[in-house]
Amino acid sequence: MLQAAESTATTAAALLASVRARQPRVHCITNTVAAPFTANVLLAAGAVPSMTVSIEEVGAFVARADAALINLGTFDADRRAATLRAVDAAASHRRPFVLDPVFVDRSPPRAAFAREVVGLGPAAVRLNAPELATLFGEDETPAGAARISGAVVAVTGPIDVVADGRRGVRVANGHPLMAKITATGCAAGALVAAFLSVTDDAFEATAAALLAWSVAAEVAGDVARGPGSFVPALIDALHALDTATLLQRARVSA
Amino acid sequence: MLQAAESTATTAAALLASVRARQPRVHCITNTVAAPFTANVLLAAGAVPSMTVSIEEVGAFVARADAALINLGTFDADRRAATLRAVDAAASHRRPFVLDPVFVDRSPPRAAFAREVVGLGPAAVRLNAPELATLFGEDETPAGAARISGAVVAVTGPIDVVADGRRGVRVANGHPLMAKITATGCAAGALVAAFLSVTDDAFEATAAALLAWSVAAEVAGDVARGPGSFVPALIDALHALDTATLLQRARVSA
Amino acid sequence: MLQAAESTATTAAALLASVRARQPRVHCITNTVAAPFTANVLLAAGAVPSMTVSIEEVGAFVARADAALINLGTFDADRRAATLRAVDAAASHRRPFVLDPVFVDRSPPRAAFAREVVGLGPAAVRLNAPELATLFGEDETPAGAARISGAVVAVTGPIDVVADGRRGVRVANGHPLMAKITATGCAAGALVAAFLSVTDDAFEATAAALLAWSVAAEVAGDVARGPGSFVPALIDALHALDTATLLQRARVSA
Repeated sequence: MLQAAESTATTAAALLASVRARQPRVHCITNTVAAPFTANVLLAAGAVPSMTVSIEEVGAFVARADAALINLGTFDADRRAATLRAVDAAASHRRPFVLDPVFVDRSPPRAAFAREVVGLGPAAVRLNAPELATLFGEDETPAGAARISGAVVAVTGPIDVVADGRRGVRVANGHPLMAKITATGCAAGALVAAFLSVTDDAFEATAAALLAWSVAAEVAGDVARGPGSFVPALIDALHALDTATLLQRARVSA
Repeated sequence: MLQAAESTATTAAALLASVRARQPRVHCITNTVAAPFTANVLLAAGAVPSMTVSIEEVGAFVARADAALINLGTFDADRRAATLRAVDAAASHRRPFVLDPVFVDRSPPRAAFAREVVGLGPAAVRLNAPELATLFGEDETPAGAARISGAVVAVTGPIDVVADGRRGVRVANGHPLMAKITATGCAAGALVAAFLSVTDDAFEATAAALLAWSVAAEVAGDVARGPGSFVPALIDALHALDTATLLQRARVSA
Repeated sequence: MLQAAESTATTAAALLASVRARQPRVHCITNTVAAPFTANVLLAAGAVPSMTVSIEEVGAFVARADAALINLGTFDADRRAATLRAVDAAASHRRPFVLDPVFVDRSPPRAAFAREVVGLGPAAVRLNAPELATLFGEDETPAGAARISGAVVAVTGPIDVVADGRRGVRVANGHPLMAKITATGCAAGALVAAFLSVTDDAFEATAAALLAWSVAAEVAGDVARGPGSFVPALIDALHALDTATLLQRARVSA
């Protein structure tokens, strides 16, 4: 137990240092509600966001980026076409991408499209429990979903579960106010993309990014007076996150 | 006077408690400027926002929601089609919806579309004085507009006026910084939708939501150092709003 | 040196006072990431933002506005058509507009479109060094770009350079956290548009707006605990900015 915590915290500190040093570009196809917060989270972590969804440009942006986020929170015909163009560019330029199938449990056409994108080789899929059930079946585990999809699967909630079919960890950090502000999950997916760009181990990148995010949320929760002040506090905490805090706070089990 | 204040404050406390307990889903068709703030306001009140405007999905989202907000701040052909689909879903599933006809005083085509939506049975219409004049005529009162439309009409400003044709109240709470940040009106409309989902009395829901919002703004104004810090303070205040504060601060007259 | 600082600070204080008194309408065609922050920055300065991009309406909104911002951060066929309509309305109603050619260095079609808009008579162009190189040539100076375009050219960065072909100033104010939050450049462009609406001297308006923005950022940097708390602090500082602070902090050279 303690070993998993120390190991994941050490990896998170190392990958966060790499992100801060290399300043990877992360191209995000994300929804309009999450876009400003996601951009600020990436900048606070040391990455450089871009967010165009124009079909004429998205391929070029992804090709010059170091990783991509595909968030399905805005879903229309133009967006779907841009998404497929972005995924195609990621594949041909070997850029890792994260899929975030927001609200597939509420919309059958969105679920069908998400399944198509799962088949196009995301490095990681971040979702919540109802979205996992919709995409992979009612009784499927994260490990099972990882084996089916070939992607690292991260199911976030009060406890985050990350699995790649061989390995698995549970991250118990976080704060209840995360559920009281919009786009914490969307921003977590963007952070996973940033971490994916600095290592070839997608499992480590995903677990490390979610740990960094959850620990930052705990630090923010200690100073916030409610969900409003939690937003700036969370970004401040991510920006200031250091190895000692990660090691001290990490609650990770295998 | 004091009676109206105490009665509205008591209702606001009771409806806010219901929203926090039931966590209603509120589907918002709103503009891109207001979307992130509106989502965070709904979450702070205890509701759960969704915001897709895709024509393929919006009907299903509204059908599974408890109330809807139709904000006309983004206005194009796709958005109009999605709006009509959403209103149709609200009508067939008997979900109350709020109409917020943003800036109809600046755009004749938007005003024409807003009139069409008024005819489709909103439970409440939230607007400002120039928008009221544009939609209902230069000299029309809120009570007159309520009788014409069959909806509760809420004209917000330094003093909010709420009328349903039989009853009327004036809410004198609020803070000047509300006019110095974007989307306070849009978010107020979303809050009205959340309150509508927990009672059948649309007049009480509208007055109570606007009182809760205005009192939260006063509390925030006491601690904010300007419009920037007013935003998180307002969301914190709404999240923490309690019966005592509502009773103590309410300035409502019949 | 000191003379340029005092003169620009005095002009900035005077123009900011005019913006606060006249409350000009600034119509912004901007990207979805920057929209909420830009709206709040304009409100904090005393201006009134509007942001529709609907082709049916944008002409009427620009015609009734006092200035416009054309930000190319969201770029698709609909947006391009709306942009040209807005520029056309600005020209026929003699409203000054600012062009912000975001990321033209990363997208050849966007660069081509930006060159077209440069030819349509912006009062000012705000961009960063790579964008300047893309639009005007690798070795072109701001003064050269100003002569070519006929617009005031403002190249922002750690030091902002403003030139109109005859005059030039360098503004050395600012704070490193400006690069750690999204949309500071986009918001600066909107502020330039607000200042353009209260004077006929586009060079003075541009230099004054960038000085006000950079000094507000310094004030905010003194109190922020990171990029998260920098956002509300920056808006608070702009809202409270006074002549004494401008005179005391301005670092401007000819």
